Amino acid sequence: MTHIAILGFGVVGSGVAEVLQAASDAGKAPAAVAVKRILDLRDFPESPFGSLVTHDFGDILGDREISVVVEAMGGIHPAYEFTKAALEAGKSVVTSNKQVVAAHGPELLELAKKHGVRYLFEASVGGGIPVIHPLTHDFTANRITRIDGILNGTTNFMLTRMLTAAIDFSAALKEAQANGFAEADPTADVEGHDAARKIVILAALAFGKLLSPENISCRGITKITVQDSRTAAAFGCALKLIAHAEMIGRRVLCTVEPRLVPGEHPLSHIDGVFNGVLVNGDQVGDVMFYGQGAGKLPTASAVAADVVEAAVNPAPTAFDPVFTAAGEADYADPQAAENAFCFSFAAADADRQKIAAVLGDCRMLTLPGRVAAISGEMTRRDAEKTAAAIGLPLLSLYPLL
Amino acid sequence: MTHIAILGFGVVGSGVAEVLQAASDAGKAPAAVAVKRILDLRDFPESPFGSLVTHDFGDILGDREISVVVEAMGGIHPAYEFTKAALEAGKSVVTSNKQVVAAHGPELLELAKKHGVRYLFEASVGGGIPVIHPLTHDFTANRITRIDGILNGTTNFMLTRMLTAAIDFSAALKEAQANGFAEADPTADVEGHDAARKIVILAALAFGKLLSPENISCRGITKITVQDSRTAAAFGCALKLIAHAEMIGRRVLCTVEPRLVPGEHPLSHIDGVFNGVLVNGDQVGDVMFYGQGAGKLPTASAVAADVVEAAVNPAPTAFDPVFTAAGEADYADPQAAENAFCFSFAAADADRQKIAAVLGDCRMLTLPGRVAAISGEMTRRDAEKTAAAIGLPLLSLYPLL
Repeated sequence: MTHIAILGFGVVGSGVAEVLQAASDAGKAPAAVAVKRILDLRDFPESPFGSLVTHDFGDILGDREISVVVEAMGGIHPAYEFTKAALEAGKSVVTSNKQVVAAHGPELLELAKKHGVRYLFEASVGGGIPVIHPLTHDFTANRITRIDGILNGTTNFMLTRMLTAAIDFSAALKEAQANGFAEADPTADVEGHDAARKIVILAALAFGKLLSPENISCRGITKITVQDSRTAAAFGCALKLIAHAEMIGRRVLCTVEPRLVPGEHPLSHIDGVFNGVLVNGDQVGDVMFYGQGAGKLPTASAVAADVVEAAVNPAPTAFDPVFTAAGEADYADPQAAENAFCFSFAAADADRQKIAAVLGDCRMLTLPGRVAAISGEMTRRDAEKTAAAIGLPLLSLYPLL
Repeated sequence: MTHIAILGFGVVGSGVAEVLQAASDAGKAPAAVAVKRILDLRDFPESPFGSLVTHDFGDILGDREISVVVEAMGGIHPAYEFTKAALEAGKSVVTSNKQVVAAHGPELLELAKKHGVRYLFEASVGGGIPVIHPLTHDFTANRITRIDGILNGTTNFMLTRMLTAAIDFSAALKEAQANGFAEADPTADVEGHDAARKIVILAALAFGKLLSPENISCRGITKITVQDSRTAAAFGCALKLIAHAEMIGRRVLCTVEPRLVPGEHPLSHIDGVFNGVLVNGDQVGDVMFYGQGAGKLPTASAVAADVVEAAVNPAPTAFDPVFTAAGEADYADPQAAENAFCFSFAAADADRQKIAAVLGDCRMLTLPGRVAAISGEMTRRDAEKTAAAIGLPLLSLYPLL
């Protein structure tokens, strides 16, 4: 029997207790796991786990029987300090807390190794969808060439609704909030910060360098209009918030931004609150993972699997990821990344020649109030220069995937 | 350094040697692996691995330095006997050979356990797509409720071409053969036998019972007409060869048959030679895995990952699958499984009333030479009775997914 503690009895923490209980009742998992203590500021007299609650982290840290700690507090402080203390006390730590992983992953992995325990965070990216294990285990013989993901369900729900119901950003946000898919303060979702934290973690696993999510090029969905969605659809594309990672030379490029995803690309069909991650490996080619990227039980399912993994294999394994914090020289210049671009100008049919004169042979469409054109591959820097050279009022500029 | 041998230097075997070499050159995998011997009837004087070839399995079996054997021979004999001998000699065995797993998996897993080694077969289903590890590891805290997969790339390529190019079965087969996607004798693919072997393996991992692929309900794609594809499309569906598994009571249902997949279902967009597997777990919900289900390097990528796993963890782990051969009482009756059905009759608009009189309120379309209707949920037995009761000539009957 492996005794565990859960830090934070909110949505994820209570989900983990429930999922582990259900698995235990069904004799499902290959290791017996029991929740011994739960840390929270509140009491939960109604919960079947209520009697396990403590308000003192010391009760958990000092309990030698507890060998695995689930950190489900969210936020960086005191989650980071508690994680550090647990690892130093020789306890494995399992988390869904992408903020802590994205900010302190290298140090915590190092600490786990030093103390002969595990630091596992499958649930930090893609909720219940296995993404981290495939990257570290299944693609171990591959050089990863690129990762593209729809990593935020809230914004994907909103973009899906903006297209299918022809509603604007603020109406879509209200719907997302009414459905419980968006928080009262939706900044982290709609500005792309949540996706940024996730893509830097995936890039660290693939490329060995953890970029700071604050330092990557990140644009959210707040400026997307219904007309932008329709323009994408008119080109047979879906407008999606895409988190992207690749190596450019010896540097790592991570970006989060809305992109036109062509209909034949598997990410174009990921709708609603679902997430999808497409990984390209030099041997395996394109592999995509799809599922619920958030939510109590899907996230708890991934945390529970990591808890069982830590119970079955309490000591570090050769598959455990190793990455270091990126220095300034590890960041690729996002302005130098090449893509096809979709330009939309406030213009009419008569202006098409002006656009063609600069862009050359390209796909062009006239839509109400705008002319849109898809260019060949160019850098973002050149795309911006090109837009200026055309001289028409630019409504939007999106790279293609 | 882990020394391995490869049995069979065909497409997969040579791919494994190449992928492992590439990973080793790049310092990619967490364990150093070297190919020491290759068993084949032929010689390969041109290959960089040519000097490793032996024609005598005894050279491998008797070599105590070789701790992992890759079985890439295909077919059941002598692949099964060699696998058994290797396990009994204390060597882990890694394979992509679904025929051997589907026929002898329980015995070989038991034997591996007994001799303290591994029997790993991630590549036997879905080529390079991780499916088996997610089922055994990532969903360990879930009860799997159902599995639906497009598990055969050849037939999916053909069905995609039949719809998009409006060509018939035999023309699509010729195209598949010309592109190297179908073998000279395509029976195992087009009759569904290949998909049947794969779904019984997935069902065994999910439900603990290995059904015999010969004893499950299996219909291939040979009778599908261009009109059937068009009928599906007219209902907003794709016609796909779907391998399905679920528990009905305490019995396991596995079927392989063409089904109408609604456009909002993620499997409906899996086109060409790609595979997709949708797993539903009671906690995680729907998760889909997508990628190249066959081909030299994708398959070799999965084999290589298992080789590294066996090198890193040479002894059995608590996650290793356990399943037993199914008895007669473990098979669910496919005639009793409930689905919505798409009926197509050789009929005209005037016959619609006849159909509605029996099917009641249903979606109905008149297409050239046929009237098609989608029923509510019923058993296959009732669907066949219903078709007879309507009394019009039945052109085709497909369940929906």
